[in-house]
Amino acid sequence: MATLFKDVYILDGERERAQRGHLLVSKGRIQSILDADAAPPQADKVVDGGGRMALLPGFVNAHTHAAMALLRGLGEEVALKKWLEEKIWPAEAKLTPEDIYWGTASAILEMLATGTTCFADMYFQMECVARAALEAGIRAALCRGIVTGPPIDGISKIDRGIEENLKLFDRWHGREGLLTVQLGPHAPYTVPLDDMKRIVDISKDRSIGLHFHFLETEWEFGYISDEFKMTPLAYLQRTGLTETPGVVLAHGVWMNPVWADSVDLSQLTIVHNPCSNMKLGSGVMPLDTWLDKNVGLALGTDGASSNNRLDMWGEMRSAALLHKGVTRSPAGAPALDILRMATFEGARAFGFANKGLLREGWVADLALVDLDQPHYVGADEDNLASFIVYAGSSADIRGTMVNGKWLYKDGVYTCLDKDEILHKAREARKAILS
Amino acid sequence: MATLFKDVYILDGERERAQRGHLLVSKGRIQSILDADAAPPQADKVVDGGGRMALLPGFVNAHTHAAMALLRGLGEEVALKKWLEEKIWPAEAKLTPEDIYWGTASAILEMLATGTTCFADMYFQMECVARAALEAGIRAALCRGIVTGPPIDGISKIDRGIEENLKLFDRWHGREGLLTVQLGPHAPYTVPLDDMKRIVDISKDRSIGLHFHFLETEWEFGYISDEFKMTPLAYLQRTGLTETPGVVLAHGVWMNPVWADSVDLSQLTIVHNPCSNMKLGSGVMPLDTWLDKNVGLALGTDGASSNNRLDMWGEMRSAALLHKGVTRSPAGAPALDILRMATFEGARAFGFANKGLLREGWVADLALVDLDQPHYVGADEDNLASFIVYAGSSADIRGTMVNGKWLYKDGVYTCLDKDEILHKAREARKAILS
Repeated sequence: MATLFKDVYILDGERERAQRGHLLVSKGRIQSILDADAAPPQADKVVDGGGRMALLPGFVNAHTHAAMALLRGLGEEVALKKWLEEKIWPAEAKLTPEDIYWGTASAILEMLATGTTCFADMYFQMECVARAALEAGIRAALCRGIVTGPPIDGISKIDRGIEENLKLFDRWHGREGLLTVQLGPHAPYTVPLDDMKRIVDISKDRSIGLHFHFLETEWEFGYISDEFKMTPLAYLQRTGLTETPGVVLAHGVWMNPVWADSVDLSQLTIVHNPCSNMKLGSGVMPLDTWLDKNVGLALGTDGASSNNRLDMWGEMRSAALLHKGVTRSPAGAPALDILRMATFEGARAFGFANKGLLREGWVADLALVDLDQPHYVGADEDNLASFIVYAGSSADIRGTMVNGKWLYKDGVYTCLDKDEILHKAREARKAILS
Repeated sequence: MATLFKDVYILDGERERAQRGHLLVSKGRIQSILDADAAPPQADKVVDGGGRMALLPGFVNAHTHAAMALLRGLGEEVALKKWLEEKIWPAEAKLTPEDIYWGTASAILEMLATGTTCFADMYFQMECVARAALEAGIRAALCRGIVTGPPIDGISKIDRGIEENLKLFDRWHGREGLLTVQLGPHAPYTVPLDDMKRIVDISKDRSIGLHFHFLETEWEFGYISDEFKMTPLAYLQRTGLTETPGVVLAHGVWMNPVWADSVDLSQLTIVHNPCSNMKLGSGVMPLDTWLDKNVGLALGTDGASSNNRLDMWGEMRSAALLHKGVTRSPAGAPALDILRMATFEGARAFGFANKGLLREGWVADLALVDLDQPHYVGADEDNLASFIVYAGSSADIRGTMVNGKWLYKDGVYTCLDKDEILHKAREARKAILS
């Protein structure tokens, strides 16, 4: 079945100028893109934009913990370490596989309604996350959070984590073209150094991507010096992270862009999570300076319990504004860079080829945007990226399409039972907090 | 006609805990608020929340220039002074009264859709703004921006501005209970010192409020020292601003909270505009420290050309996150304070009595919120303020009511012709930019 988007604005993170024209989707791909003055091709379904709709690549939420949607609002207004140790970890200890399934499903509802077509998730019971993603039809990059701890049945917790993570890879990587799987060592302070080296070696040897929390807080910067007697940059080098393809570092708030001048960081992607970093008081990463370096930069929400939204459009706006405010440079963090971070860069980082830009032959992961609203008066080909990032919001999403199929359209989920999922999620939360 | 809100959560900026119950609106007022276990009163119209809706006071946008909606996206990514001088002022010089009417009307569409029931506006051709507000039925606080410049027909530009502003007051102040009028000296750098003293005297003598830009940028801090040979605090005192009731200072980014320890600033209200300040790189005001001082603090969007939204809900979230991030204190800028700034404090500052809180006998200016969504799983009486500020967004607004009358309900404007307004606004913008 082919869907024609007739007379829409077509924008992605590599187009300085939006194109007004027609876009034909067929067999899950963008078959053709034509200028507005060309005759629109035939199709079974036509979405007539009338010059008042835009198509964007679907957003890629490049770092989250979807099931934490169940823990939203727990331990508000406290710092990361205390928040984890006193609120989140005790609650997580109670989570059953079913909880994680329903928590993830409720997160997927939120992501689809806000234009997200792909999310990168680090958690546990990841089979439940895989199942929820496949049932929804959304794209996902999955890893099992690997942390140290007391041995279980005589097997070290790290070994068990690695084993689970590799099983996850063997079973789900590439499934239905929707899923990729990475290794998920949690953070420098939860994975011993030797284990970290071992995990990086597996990543390199088996060509499995790696998703890791790195320098989210300043405390962690000190921890690496104290515990490992090395700088954080040396940590990246000695563990082999800088030389391994497909490594994604979440947060990186306290990474220093000057490192890129002496060490090749070009294989790394740093995922910026501005709202979570603000909310937990973790700090503000120097995004502007990073944008001038040769390193991948993507955007994510982090979990809903520290954001507290899973709304990539809001995350774009926060990123675009925050860095102007903090550096006092209104030219900082330009709209188009932010849009590219929120789409293409995340897809690329997690091994999704031909996704995140609107090009002929690329996969039709799309967000449809209603421009017939007061805050788009004056939007045109030349300024649409600015209007989207600075004036728009996820309230403007009229549809979210993955692989050429609508998953959310005009407020309705096509594959998911919203009422059931919300009911189950509410019940799960009650049980966790009781 | 009476409207009953049955089984809803009732929350405002002075309730640590939301109340689940029934709220009856009649004759433009909140007639009664009952607990959920009480029998709901009779009414012509019933909105049955089923425990999945919330009522908030409508937002009060305490500083904007509504008609600048026409100039949205002009001069992106440049600093305040250059932006004003090279982009905004030349465009504003072309604005006709009709442009200002349609620009304001389009801004009102945006504000109503995002839950705002009152806005404080400083611009010119303010009769057009008054007309647009009355026709929409929205509450507004109006002032004529008074600036120096070459005399017109032998009368100084300041005198002309004062005259227009006083005419505005005489004609519109108190009109239909919807409007208040203030004096609008623009800023220290656009109003000579003696004229400023004169305007403040008029404000005090005639008990007319005053709305003023103050210390939006660091440059202005230096300007006051250089030009007036006094500190900015001395400026506030010597012009009489600190001793005049009803003075509202927009921005105040570079005001220092330590001033409040030696000088009584309790009559002043500072309007925080976090998004505009970030976007123009003007700086980050120390909101956290101000919250401990005896001074009024409200919230505004500023004009759409520097925000670029007129969305108070987004402004709340930005304020709540920004200050945690910059001070690295997750306990900073608590949700309830932010909600009070976005509602009650703005109403109070601009002379609107009995508005901005949900209390029996108070005016029914309300925003109806849909909680039946994934991001509200777990919201309850104890945590609703956090859910609203951190997890919610204006996409959750299901209705906006002023004086007990729906102005916006389920996506439809009851008093305004959206299509006509957007058409006229687009035409006006085209003419300005041609």
